[in-house]
Amino acid sequence: MFAEAQSDPALSKEVFEAEETRLRTALLKAQYRQLKREDRGLLIVVAGIDGAGKGATINLLNEWMDPRHIHTLAFGEPTHDEQERPPLWRYWNEMPAKGKTGIVFGSWYLPLLREAARKKPRAQRLTEYVDTINRFEASLTADGIQIIKLWYHLSAKAQAKRTKNLLSNPETAWQVTEADRKVQKKYDRICQAGDTVIRLLNAPHAPWTVIPSADEHMRAVCTAQTVLHALEQRPRAPKSQVFTASSETRRRSPDRFAQLDYSATLDKDDYESELSQLQGRLAHAVRSKAFAERSLVLAFEGQDAAGKGGAIRRVTHALDLRQVDIHPISAPSHHELAHPYLWRFWRRLPRQGRIAIFDRSWYGRVLVERVEGLASSAAWRRAYGEINDFEHQLAGHGAIVLKFWLAVTPAEQLKRFRERERSPFKNFKITPDDWRNREKWNLYTQAANDMLARTDTDDAPWHLIAANDKRHARVQVLRDIVTAMEKTL
Amino acid sequence: MFAEAQSDPALSKEVFEAEETRLRTALLKAQYRQLKREDRGLLIVVAGIDGAGKGATINLLNEWMDPRHIHTLAFGEPTHDEQERPPLWRYWNEMPAKGKTGIVFGSWYLPLLREAARKKPRAQRLTEYVDTINRFEASLTADGIQIIKLWYHLSAKAQAKRTKNLLSNPETAWQVTEADRKVQKKYDRICQAGDTVIRLLNAPHAPWTVIPSADEHMRAVCTAQTVLHALEQRPRAPKSQVFTASSETRRRSPDRFAQLDYSATLDKDDYESELSQLQGRLAHAVRSKAFAERSLVLAFEGQDAAGKGGAIRRVTHALDLRQVDIHPISAPSHHELAHPYLWRFWRRLPRQGRIAIFDRSWYGRVLVERVEGLASSAAWRRAYGEINDFEHQLAGHGAIVLKFWLAVTPAEQLKRFRERERSPFKNFKITPDDWRNREKWNLYTQAANDMLARTDTDDAPWHLIAANDKRHARVQVLRDIVTAMEKTL
Repeated sequence: MFAEAQSDPALSKEVFEAEETRLRTALLKAQYRQLKREDRGLLIVVAGIDGAGKGATINLLNEWMDPRHIHTLAFGEPTHDEQERPPLWRYWNEMPAKGKTGIVFGSWYLPLLREAARKKPRAQRLTEYVDTINRFEASLTADGIQIIKLWYHLSAKAQAKRTKNLLSNPETAWQVTEADRKVQKKYDRICQAGDTVIRLLNAPHAPWTVIPSADEHMRAVCTAQTVLHALEQRPRAPKSQVFTASSETRRRSPDRFAQLDYSATLDKDDYESELSQLQGRLAHAVRSKAFAERSLVLAFEGQDAAGKGGAIRRVTHALDLRQVDIHPISAPSHHELAHPYLWRFWRRLPRQGRIAIFDRSWYGRVLVERVEGLASSAAWRRAYGEINDFEHQLAGHGAIVLKFWLAVTPAEQLKRFRERERSPFKNFKITPDDWRNREKWNLYTQAANDMLARTDTDDAPWHLIAANDKRHARVQVLRDIVTAMEKTL
Repeated sequence: MFAEAQSDPALSKEVFEAEETRLRTALLKAQYRQLKREDRGLLIVVAGIDGAGKGATINLLNEWMDPRHIHTLAFGEPTHDEQERPPLWRYWNEMPAKGKTGIVFGSWYLPLLREAARKKPRAQRLTEYVDTINRFEASLTADGIQIIKLWYHLSAKAQAKRTKNLLSNPETAWQVTEADRKVQKKYDRICQAGDTVIRLLNAPHAPWTVIPSADEHMRAVCTAQTVLHALEQRPRAPKSQVFTASSETRRRSPDRFAQLDYSATLDKDDYESELSQLQGRLAHAVRSKAFAERSLVLAFEGQDAAGKGGAIRRVTHALDLRQVDIHPISAPSHHELAHPYLWRFWRRLPRQGRIAIFDRSWYGRVLVERVEGLASSAAWRRAYGEINDFEHQLAGHGAIVLKFWLAVTPAEQLKRFRERERSPFKNFKITPDDWRNREKWNLYTQAANDMLARTDTDDAPWHLIAANDKRHARVQVLRDIVTAMEKTL
C-alpha cells in the first residue's frame, strides 16, 4: 500500500512551480463550479503518519483555494456535549452545506485506527467500526456528499530526520510536541494500522489516496491533484447495497391498520384517573438517577387530525419544561435541504437526562416524500436502512427511542376535519393540503404499512394506537412510554 | 405592584368560555400576521411565584396558538457548554428567528432575582445585573425583537391551598416537587424580589405585566390578552439612549491612518527568524494551563488586499488545528438576517481553551454597512455601544480579545490589485466590488477612524498596523498577540 510513498519521492523546485500555477488555477475553477451546485459537497478526510505535514497541507489548501468556502473541521477528544450523543453526532453536527468543501481532521477513523494499532486488535471491535463507517460513508455519498480520504505517509527515516531538523533549531523546536516523539517509536504499528484500515475501507465511492509526504513539494502537488480530480469527477454512488436489498423493499407488507380495534374507548372518569397516575409515574421516571445517563426520544406520526398535538401535551404535562424540547417537523427549509436528509434530526438529538419529542419526524422520507414524489425511489427505499441505522446508534448510546402512530379511520378523520372547519380557532389546523392528502388515503396507508414492516425494531419499536377515541389514545401513549421507561431504568 | 393579583381574582366559567373563543381566534390571526413579517419577533419572558402555573400557561399558549411557530426556551442550570461562554450566550444562541415567538423560562432574570431575594442583596451586584439586562433588552428591541415579561402572582394563602390540594390526591401529589415546598417558606422574600426587579426594569419597550394566577381562567385570559396586545401593537423602540449619546457619534475623530509610518519594512532573514520565535511563544502560550480557562478572540479588518489572509495563516501556523476556528465573514445569509445583528457572532464564540479568528468581523456594521447604506443611521450609530458591550462581556468572562486593522496606502493597494489581476490563481480575489470600494476610500477611512475612536477599549484594544510591507505587518500581528497572551496568562 505504501510502497511508493515509502521511498520518499521528491519534486524539484522547477517542476513544482510550474505545477503550482496549473493546479491553483484549476482548483479555483473547480471550486467555483462546485459552489454553484446545490446537490453536491466534498469532504476531504485527512489522516496519516504524525509529522507528515497534515496541518501544513490544510493551510495550503486554504491558501490555494478560496478559503471562504472551505470548512476545516478538526476534532480532538470529544467534549462533554459530544459525549452525550452517539459518536457520529459531532460529524453530523458540523457537516458543511452542499456546494462547500469540508476538511476533516480527527475523523471517524480515529477509533478504528486506535484499535488497529493495538498490539492485539480485537476482531469484533474492528468489525463494528468498519461496519459503522461503511454505513456512514455510504449514506453520505448516496445523499450528495462526495468523500475522499488522504493518507499522508513518509518513511521512518524521513520522519526521524524531520524531527531532528526541527529540534536542532531553537526557532522551530516548538513544532515538535511530546506526542510527536512518542509516535516515532510506534511508527511500524501505525503503518500497519493504516494499511489495515485503507484495505478495509477503500470503497470506490469513498477512496483512499496515499500522499508521499517526505518532500513538501511532492506532498502539495499530490494533495492538490487528488482534490482536483475529485472536484472534476462525477461522484460515484455507493455500489454495494449497504442498506437494503431492493427485493426487501418491494415485498408486500401486511396491513396492520386493518387489524386495529378502533372501537376502544375510555370514559371520562377512568381517563382522568389513569392519565394522572401515568403522568405521575412518568414524572418519577424522568427524575430518577438512572435517567440522568440516558435520554428519551419520542416520534409521533399519524394521519392528519389523529390527535398528535393533544397526546404530546398530555406527555409534556408530566415533564419539567427545562427537560424537554418539542420539535414540530414540516418541510425542510432551504438551509436544511443543503444537507443530507438526516442532518436536521441528528442536530436535534437530546443530551443525557433530556427528552426530545418530534411532532412528525424523520419518517417523512418514507411517508409524505414517497407519496408526493419529493424523494426519488432510490432515496426513500434506502431510507429504511438509514433510519434503522440512525435509531440503532441512538439506542446503542443509551437513548430510549419510541415511535407512535396514532391511527384514525377515514370516517373519524372526516368528522374532525368538519369540526375544525367550523371552529373559529381550530380552522388554522385544516388546509387544502389536508383534503388532498385524504384523497391519497390508500397510498399513505401503504407507505405506512411498509414503514411499520421495515422499521419496527427492538432498538426503536413502533406503537400503533387506535385513536378514534382521543382519551383511549392519550392514555395508551402514556402507558407505552411509562412501560418502556420503567423497564429500562 | 401586586395589589390586584394579591386578592386572587377569579373569572366565572361562562365569561371564560366566551373570552376563550374571542382570544384564540384573535391570537391566531395576530400570530399569522407576525409570521409574514421578517423584521419582527416576539420574546415572552415568564417568571413569578412558584406554583403559580407558569408551566401550564406555556402549555396553554402552545394550544391556543399555532405551536409550530412557538419556541419554548426553558433554561435550567447552565450546561458545561454554556458555562464556557458569557452568561447571555445561551439566550443569544437559542434566539428564535424573526416572525417567530419565543417563550423564555429560566430567563436572564434568574441571577438578578436570586440576588434580590437574598437577605441582604448586594447593591453592586444588583446594579451590574440591571445594567446588563437593560443593555441586552434595549439592543434586542432596537433590532426588531419585541419583549414582554409576565410575572405570575398569587397570594401566599392561594399558594398553600394549591399545594395542599395537589398533595391530598395521590394522583396529583407528584406535581409538587421538593423545591415547591421550600419556596412556600420564602414566599415573602420572593415577592419582595419580584417587586424590586419589576420596578427596576419596567421599561416601555420591554414592559412587565403581573398576571393574577390563583384562578386558572383568570390566568389564561390575562396571559392571552397580554400576548395579543403585544402582537397587535407596534413595538416600541427603546427610548433612552442606552448605548451612545448621538453627540458622541457625531464628534469628529482623529485621523489615525495619517499618523502611521508606512515605510516600516523587515528584511527576509529577520522576518523568518522573528516569525519563528514569535510562533514558538504563541504555541507555548496556548498550550499553557492558564489558557485552558480562557479563550482567544481575534478580529481582522483592513482595506481590501491589505494582507489579512496571509497574516492569519502565519498565526494559525503556530496553533493546533483542533484548537482554532477561522470564521470568514461576508454578507449575512437570509437565515442570519432573520436574527439580531450580533447573533451570528455570539454563536461563533469559542469555548474555553480555544481560539476563534474572524476574517472580517462584527465591525462590518460600522464599516461596509454604514458606507454602503445597508444599515440605517440609527443602527450603525447604536452599534458602537452594542459592540463595546459585546466585547466587554467577552472580556469579563476571561476571553482575550484583540482587533487588528491592517492598513495599506492607496498606492500600495493599487499595486496589489494589479498583481492580483495578472495572476491566474489570485484573480479570484479581485472583484468589481473591490474597485468600487476603492473609489470610496475616503468614506471608508472616515468610518474606520470613527470606529477606532469609539471602540478602542481596554477590554478589546485595536492594533492599527502599517501593512505596506507584508513581512513587517505579519510579525507585528504575531508580536501583539504574543505580548497580550503573555501579559494575561
